[in-house]
Amino acid sequence: MNPQPRRADRARQIADALRRQVLDGDFTNGVLPDERLLGREFGATRNAVREALELLRADGLIERSPGVGTVVVARKYPHGLNRLMGLAETLHEHGVVTNEVRTSGVVAATGVLAERLGLPVGADIVCIERLRRLNDLPLSLDLTYLPADVGEPLLAEDLVNNDVFTLLERICGQPLGRAEVGMEAVNADPHVAAVLDLPRGGALLLVERLTHLADGRPVDLEFIRFRGDRLTMRAVLDR
Amino acid sequence: MNPQPRRADRARQIADALRRQVLDGDFTNGVLPDERLLGREFGATRNAVREALELLRADGLIERSPGVGTVVVARKYPHGLNRLMGLAETLHEHGVVTNEVRTSGVVAATGVLAERLGLPVGADIVCIERLRRLNDLPLSLDLTYLPADVGEPLLAEDLVNNDVFTLLERICGQPLGRAEVGMEAVNADPHVAAVLDLPRGGALLLVERLTHLADGRPVDLEFIRFRGDRLTMRAVLDR
Repeated sequence: MNPQPRRADRARQIADALRRQVLDGDFTNGVLPDERLLGREFGATRNAVREALELLRADGLIERSPGVGTVVVARKYPHGLNRLMGLAETLHEHGVVTNEVRTSGVVAATGVLAERLGLPVGADIVCIERLRRLNDLPLSLDLTYLPADVGEPLLAEDLVNNDVFTLLERICGQPLGRAEVGMEAVNADPHVAAVLDLPRGGALLLVERLTHLADGRPVDLEFIRFRGDRLTMRAVLDR
Repeated sequence: MNPQPRRADRARQIADALRRQVLDGDFTNGVLPDERLLGREFGATRNAVREALELLRADGLIERSPGVGTVVVARKYPHGLNRLMGLAETLHEHGVVTNEVRTSGVVAATGVLAERLGLPVGADIVCIERLRRLNDLPLSLDLTYLPADVGEPLLAEDLVNNDVFTLLERICGQPLGRAEVGMEAVNADPHVAAVLDLPRGGALLLVERLTHLADGRPVDLEFIRFRGDRLTMRAVLDR
């Protein structure tokens, strides 16, 4: 290598390779090889390996304890980006999604919400905030806005055990069509961190998604904050 | 609303709506309306508006100063997810991407890297680490692994001013094909934070991408850490 990489760079390289194996469940019984073996595999010093493991520990992927060694604790789930799906649909292989409705009700659409939903400013819209859990562990905090004619019937449905997508298709009598999605990495503010049971400043994947019905009408504007340590977005792209 | 949302929830709702307008450049001269006007628009108390603005300030999107008011300082760029593109290709409308090669050279492929690149363990691979800037501001830290027969010719090219994708297509005499992409939100460790000029723990979008040639051969495995405050991934999904 030219110039010689510093130890921190080397540690990150090792951590990137191990991260993949940790997330793929490659280690038998979830136990990583000891530092000496990892050092031999990566042609790295024990200090570099130790630093790499510390990076993975800080990301919440592994835990280290004397006697027990280094074990995988990550519970990170893949969320496909090649088809529009609700969370429970996406994660059905991984467990049960439940939703705690934190707030719900009718509000007046402000400028940007009205514009995105194709409604006049001041129109009634339904606002629903849900804390979503996978296997009882907090996964995301979702804020959803819907036009009143769609959102009001939705409020009468079982929002605890159903994806909004599934309910919308039933209420509207047509499938959903296309969604525009924006994704950013942000730090959790203290309040969101508390709700999602994350350390303050913990990394979140913030997803803004505007979903249309098959006929093109925008019906569902969501702001979704996923815990960064619990989800990987996956996509296949073509050149 | 039922039950009454707490002020922190209300602040986040306002912040989510404003975030969109900030990123879209909706405010004339990049100046936001004052707290009183925003409070009227959102039907919210001044305290809730102030708290919403504080959330956007903490995300690095706005700055507030007495006399000047609230101004947009975000420089956040859209990165499309519907087609496989290099960074300079993706961001060409937004400015000039330059790459600082921090390390480069030939290393022996360890288990997971060899497997993903379809090579025997111990095979020579080329490793390149680049700090990528857009208009001279740090945007991402990219670690790239390539098979030696592709990577060695690449090292002779102008990596400072070109996307690896463009160079690879020239070297290999065929277009790139498909890439598998995984995206996660993580906190920057102190070393990466220093390299990217971020606060410690700042949110990063960590992208792992394995790119194949059109003939199916895997040729480019990258681990990319984007500054969360400078990039939005955008996609259109169909049901």
